[in-house]
Amino acid sequence: MTPVPSHEQLLDRLSRQHIETQSWGYVNTGTRFKVFTTPGAPRDVREKIDDAALVHRLTGVAPTVALHIPWDRVDDYVALAAYAVEQGIRIGSISPNVFQDDEYRLGSFTNEDPRVRRQAIERCLETVGIMDDVGSTVLSMWLADGTNYPGQADFRRRRGYLLESLQEVYDALAPHQSMVLEYKFFEPAFYHTDIADWGQSFTYCQKLGDRANVLVDLGHHALGVNIEHIVATLLAEKRLGGFDLNSKKYADDDLFVGAINPYELFLIAVELVAGEDDEDAEVAAAARRVLYKIDQTAMIEEKIPAMIRSVTAMQSAWAKALLVDRDALRAAQVEGDVVGANTVLVDAYETDVRPLLVELRERLGVPADPLRAFMASDERTTRISQRVGVAAGW
Amino acid sequence: MTPVPSHEQLLDRLSRQHIETQSWGYVNTGTRFKVFTTPGAPRDVREKIDDAALVHRLTGVAPTVALHIPWDRVDDYVALAAYAVEQGIRIGSISPNVFQDDEYRLGSFTNEDPRVRRQAIERCLETVGIMDDVGSTVLSMWLADGTNYPGQADFRRRRGYLLESLQEVYDALAPHQSMVLEYKFFEPAFYHTDIADWGQSFTYCQKLGDRANVLVDLGHHALGVNIEHIVATLLAEKRLGGFDLNSKKYADDDLFVGAINPYELFLIAVELVAGEDDEDAEVAAAARRVLYKIDQTAMIEEKIPAMIRSVTAMQSAWAKALLVDRDALRAAQVEGDVVGANTVLVDAYETDVRPLLVELRERLGVPADPLRAFMASDERTTRISQRVGVAAGW
Amino acid sequence: MTPVPSHEQLLDRLSRQHIETQSWGYVNTGTRFKVFTTPGAPRDVREKIDDAALVHRLTGVAPTVALHIPWDRVDDYVALAAYAVEQGIRIGSISPNVFQDDEYRLGSFTNEDPRVRRQAIERCLETVGIMDDVGSTVLSMWLADGTNYPGQADFRRRRGYLLESLQEVYDALAPHQSMVLEYKFFEPAFYHTDIADWGQSFTYCQKLGDRANVLVDLGHHALGVNIEHIVATLLAEKRLGGFDLNSKKYADDDLFVGAINPYELFLIAVELVAGEDDEDAEVAAAARRVLYKIDQTAMIEEKIPAMIRSVTAMQSAWAKALLVDRDALRAAQVEGDVVGANTVLVDAYETDVRPLLVELRERLGVPADPLRAFMASDERTTRISQRVGVAAGW
Amino acid sequence: MTPVPSHEQLLDRLSRQHIETQSWGYVNTGTRFKVFTTPGAPRDVREKIDDAALVHRLTGVAPTVALHIPWDRVDDYVALAAYAVEQGIRIGSISPNVFQDDEYRLGSFTNEDPRVRRQAIERCLETVGIMDDVGSTVLSMWLADGTNYPGQADFRRRRGYLLESLQEVYDALAPHQSMVLEYKFFEPAFYHTDIADWGQSFTYCQKLGDRANVLVDLGHHALGVNIEHIVATLLAEKRLGGFDLNSKKYADDDLFVGAINPYELFLIAVELVAGEDDEDAEVAAAARRVLYKIDQTAMIEEKIPAMIRSVTAMQSAWAKALLVDRDALRAAQVEGDVVGANTVLVDAYETDVRPLLVELRERLGVPADPLRAFMASDERTTRISQRVGVAAGW
Repeated sequence: MTPVPSHEQLLDRLSRQHIETQSWGYVNTGTRFKVFTTPGAPRDVREKIDDAALVHRLTGVAPTVALHIPWDRVDDYVALAAYAVEQGIRIGSISPNVFQDDEYRLGSFTNEDPRVRRQAIERCLETVGIMDDVGSTVLSMWLADGTNYPGQADFRRRRGYLLESLQEVYDALAPHQSMVLEYKFFEPAFYHTDIADWGQSFTYCQKLGDRANVLVDLGHHALGVNIEHIVATLLAEKRLGGFDLNSKKYADDDLFVGAINPYELFLIAVELVAGEDDEDAEVAAAARRVLYKIDQTAMIEEKIPAMIRSVTAMQSAWAKALLVDRDALRAAQVEGDVVGANTVLVDAYETDVRPLLVELRERLGVPADPLRAFMASDERTTRISQRVGVAAGW
Repeated sequence: MTPVPSHEQLLDRLSRQHIETQSWGYVNTGTRFKVFTTPGAPRDVREKIDDAALVHRLTGVAPTVALHIPWDRVDDYVALAAYAVEQGIRIGSISPNVFQDDEYRLGSFTNEDPRVRRQAIERCLETVGIMDDVGSTVLSMWLADGTNYPGQADFRRRRGYLLESLQEVYDALAPHQSMVLEYKFFEPAFYHTDIADWGQSFTYCQKLGDRANVLVDLGHHALGVNIEHIVATLLAEKRLGGFDLNSKKYADDDLFVGAINPYELFLIAVELVAGEDDEDAEVAAAARRVLYKIDQTAMIEEKIPAMIRSVTAMQSAWAKALLVDRDALRAAQVEGDVVGANTVLVDAYETDVRPLLVELRERLGVPADPLRAFMASDERTTRISQRVGVAAGW
Repeated sequence: MTPVPSHEQLLDRLSRQHIETQSWGYVNTGTRFKVFTTPGAPRDVREKIDDAALVHRLTGVAPTVALHIPWDRVDDYVALAAYAVEQGIRIGSISPNVFQDDEYRLGSFTNEDPRVRRQAIERCLETVGIMDDVGSTVLSMWLADGTNYPGQADFRRRRGYLLESLQEVYDALAPHQSMVLEYKFFEPAFYHTDIADWGQSFTYCQKLGDRANVLVDLGHHALGVNIEHIVATLLAEKRLGGFDLNSKKYADDDLFVGAINPYELFLIAVELVAGEDDEDAEVAAAARRVLYKIDQTAMIEEKIPAMIRSVTAMQSAWAKALLVDRDALRAAQVEGDVVGANTVLVDAYETDVRPLLVELRERLGVPADPLRAFMASDERTTRISQRVGVAAGW
Repeated sequence: MTPVPSHEQLLDRLSRQHIETQSWGYVNTGTRFKVFTTPGAPRDVREKIDDAALVHRLTGVAPTVALHIPWDRVDDYVALAAYAVEQGIRIGSISPNVFQDDEYRLGSFTNEDPRVRRQAIERCLETVGIMDDVGSTVLSMWLADGTNYPGQADFRRRRGYLLESLQEVYDALAPHQSMVLEYKFFEPAFYHTDIADWGQSFTYCQKLGDRANVLVDLGHHALGVNIEHIVATLLAEKRLGGFDLNSKKYADDDLFVGAINPYELFLIAVELVAGEDDEDAEVAAAARRVLYKIDQTAMIEEKIPAMIRSVTAMQSAWAKALLVDRDALRAAQVEGDVVGANTVLVDAYETDVRPLLVELRERLGVPADPLRAFMASDERTTRISQRVGVAAGW
């Protein structure tokens, strides 16, 4: 029996939701055609942390910020971590960037040149060192490696290089640290991507060790792919490491969360909530350690509002997932009542959870409407007037 | 060093190519809208075997025929196998059909009802028994199981049912027999398919045992998916069991092989040829045992011509793949010469291998142009005049 | 200024919503693999009308039923129309079937054989005659015509045949009758479809005349296509004839409406509501004459519940679209407030309109929860016990 | 009757092939993640012209180069045109860039701000002036306009702005000048693109006038779309303006021509060759004026080799298309011989046309193998040594 949670239980569970925002979501980003700039964008990592801390103050559920190295390189990481704490947040997962050095033109971990592979490994080891300094426990790996033309490279030889490199990085992690390994359907490579789907990531994680798990970016699938089914599969295999949260209509559009298909987001949340409550303690434990990291790029819209919208979209999806009458759902499933089972889900989805979230925010001591609060505050105008000069980018 | 094979080596290797045609590729099939009939279509399994034997007599490289149970059910399987041998071919892999009984409306191995799961298992065990009778060594499993609506079923509960059922079937196989397990993106289920991608099939195979391997149907992927990369991955993992060969532009169109993108077929062949020649003896052995089974449905065109076209398309792709200068390819790859490496592949692909195949056919003692030979023979008209009455279908 | 409608206006507008159900949505349908049967399915056109009338009695907004010829052929159409009226509904649009005769294997209107084209035209002319008999004003044309292989046919020659045939049919329509012309991305043809996208349908409609308009089937697009943008374009061109309503995740899945992406359905409704209220009287008139026809196939689920769900999904989408604060939306658009404009839409979408629909149903004199009312009534059991014998299909 | 051309006719027709290379295909380009640089890349428009001229000297069929304004802005366009002529080529079509100014963040021709629309129109009028100076006859329009989020903009209002702006630009063209209007499925906009498909471009062209035609970029379609069918449709409508030639596997990958699916390129060429030979003089004339412009971006590979590969891929596709036995094809089509008709195409496609192209090049006085000739020449090393300093980009 899994009764629908009481109002109090709902609030309790929602108050423990933890959504990580990412430092590179606050800066100016764009497409290959143009990077438009937004007034008030942060100029350095401390200003990015300021923005992440503001989003947490406004929402109450975003207590960590993910960093990207070298975009967020500083001299003193211990001081940086302390700065974050002063602002009211902590540093979360860290991603090493192994795609923007000139040497990576033909790959990083998969490069035929051992010196380039070494360079990429060293960047990752540097990042592991930073994790130790700032108290981060998750190394979030995304590789841009792939090819643009048939024949350009040998798939299986690259597979060997990749595994060898990843293993060295994985082995450098402390026992309390873990790796999440991302996959991506395409881009920036246009013929093949070395880790193209969850299955490929999964086979690497199996070889690396127990603390290597698959990271699901919501924008990294072929069109039509049933993401909630992949999530369920990874939960069953106890290999779901986390999410890069965003939304897409076409490719890796990196729009804010829930912008294109909020029902799909809800269906994913339904799997995760069920995972957390699973009778199998290992499955439940694996579900509870999942990392929820936003990974969006505000290209034409203002960044802080976009980030707030992502956080609240996750809250909305989660709240609705908690409202699913799982006993009724299971009963309809077992009876083979197709329309009835679907109706149970839809009943939860159609519920307007905004009043519940207002109540939650009151409890958390944050504004009832974080977006409106931001727009009405002087946080926005202050940033525009004070942050002059060169803004940060990728 | 992997020198380009000599002319003699080419012919030798091409003469050993083995392409399995399927009994259900000779019958009347169609879409949900209409099954059009073709004059001369076979009426029973012996006539299907006649057609498969004819394709082998015309091409010299299709010595086995795949069966489907219950479509090809007979009273005496030993006699059926003998009949095939009399016609000059053997029975190859066998597929149990667990999607056309009324009981399977909500799934077979994944059904909530244990009696339905039992029924599906028994069908498979019956098929294993038939394998013993006819000397078949490969059980080819495709499940239509999936759902049409969110909430209709519990992904993870079904996963448990599926594994349990498969394990029972797998355990019934003799040591010289193996299972290939197919995946499919969608259809006939339209919300989720239980084994939707190679990764899902792979996780089941790992649990089942060493003789369970992934079967790749060329039409069972989301658009854009790089199939040759999946093939290489499965070769590296030594889990590539075989292929269902056909072609598609949109979904599981089941057109004859090479009809839509012959270059993709060539790129897949390049991986397989490289696998067969791999330095790693296990990889090479795994590549050499791959099953090449045609799985097409001639919906509007004549069936035997379509089957001949599939066989010759596979020969063409294989011949071109053998022509790739792999040393030059590797050199260009190691140097990072992107255009050069691609040009090596394209040079092989642009070669007109039809004269080589004519020579091969002379050696095999079959017509120089199998399609033309069929059209000019009385095989076609005889079938049309003699095969009156109800033709076989699915 | 377009103020948000008052509660009374909302109810008034929702009470005038008109959703047409289709006779072939009540019968047993399936996939190429299997047609599963549902107890209680109708056996003839009168029983289909009974089911459509029941759906109207339960929802109050489905006063017409679409027919398909020859599936719904009878001797006396005037009597059939009277029968429908007795049951409380009317006959709506009619579709001629030009894809299930053996002659159509290589096309109907596009066939190289003039006799086959004539046969297809005659079928359509017969249908126009039936329209006169039953008082139908809309001829709904869908052609399955296309090819499976490159070279199979000449695109442009077929285009000539198709236009010529359509013109003859169009010219047979009375001035108060119109044609809607459907397009489809693929299936049952797998290489090309003669009317594959809205642009192709549009070019035919332009040539045919003012009363030929494009019909949008929600399942007939490539993945990712922005349907609401096409809807807006056709509204602007005053060439939107109507919809075949259903939902899909992959191809033409024909699931019930709103089952996969209800937000997309809402966004489409937003365009249509805006069209109805347009300042340009011609655009508004064109929007108001749009046909809303359901075109779903219940393959594994019960048919009447599925149809009810489609109707209520359309009501929900429409109600939410009416709630959009269009003045606020326009203001945000003009200011370039990207997040703000999107938030206006989302605010309407997140509203729980179920209470509003309950109120509407009270006013319409129908059950507050049509699905629950059906399940609780004896309509279902009566059908199961009385409708014995061969059920209708395609 | 359309007999297969004689060897002499083949050579004659191939010698008249005209493929336009584009100035921005020679510079450093990349993805949103990284722009890698290639040694020897041109630093200004004259060096781009040098490279285009070299490609023409090596291939003999690329006598014009397309420009992009403002990327190729100079003070004296008459001098620039003269410079091109000195190098042995002419300036071809010109594209105005209306997507890289900061003002275009929310659109150019579709912007709510009339000053931004005016700025975009002025950029286009400037480009028309440049066309006059350099003797260009084709204005090639691509708009990046679109939105990232539902609600961000009003589709139909933008449609009005767009038409009005385009009309002003179109009206500025001299009678001997024409406009080609491109469409694109997505990118850089991720929710909707104002001109998203050929149908949308077509409706604008119809309104603009007879000299506005649709431009087909081979990378700008949803996956699965049958491009050759669109080409045939536009030929039939006499609205095919030209091509942006490249290839793709996923999105707008901008790989060199023929790299992913050379058979599709051949099928497109088959339609074009048939169009040029059409009995309808207007269709034939429209087909013969089609612009064949390459639009690729060499991101990781060397640019001149990539461009040579595109030119030769077009030659290969064209030569094979000329080899199609169109009488045999038509006969098989009329007989309904599906496999036979397809086999006619495949026979042409399987032909190795490299010897024919060698003969052609001898006649044209260019190297037998342009790519090898480039790699062996000192053109490459000279460029690397001499072109120091900042290379051009987008």
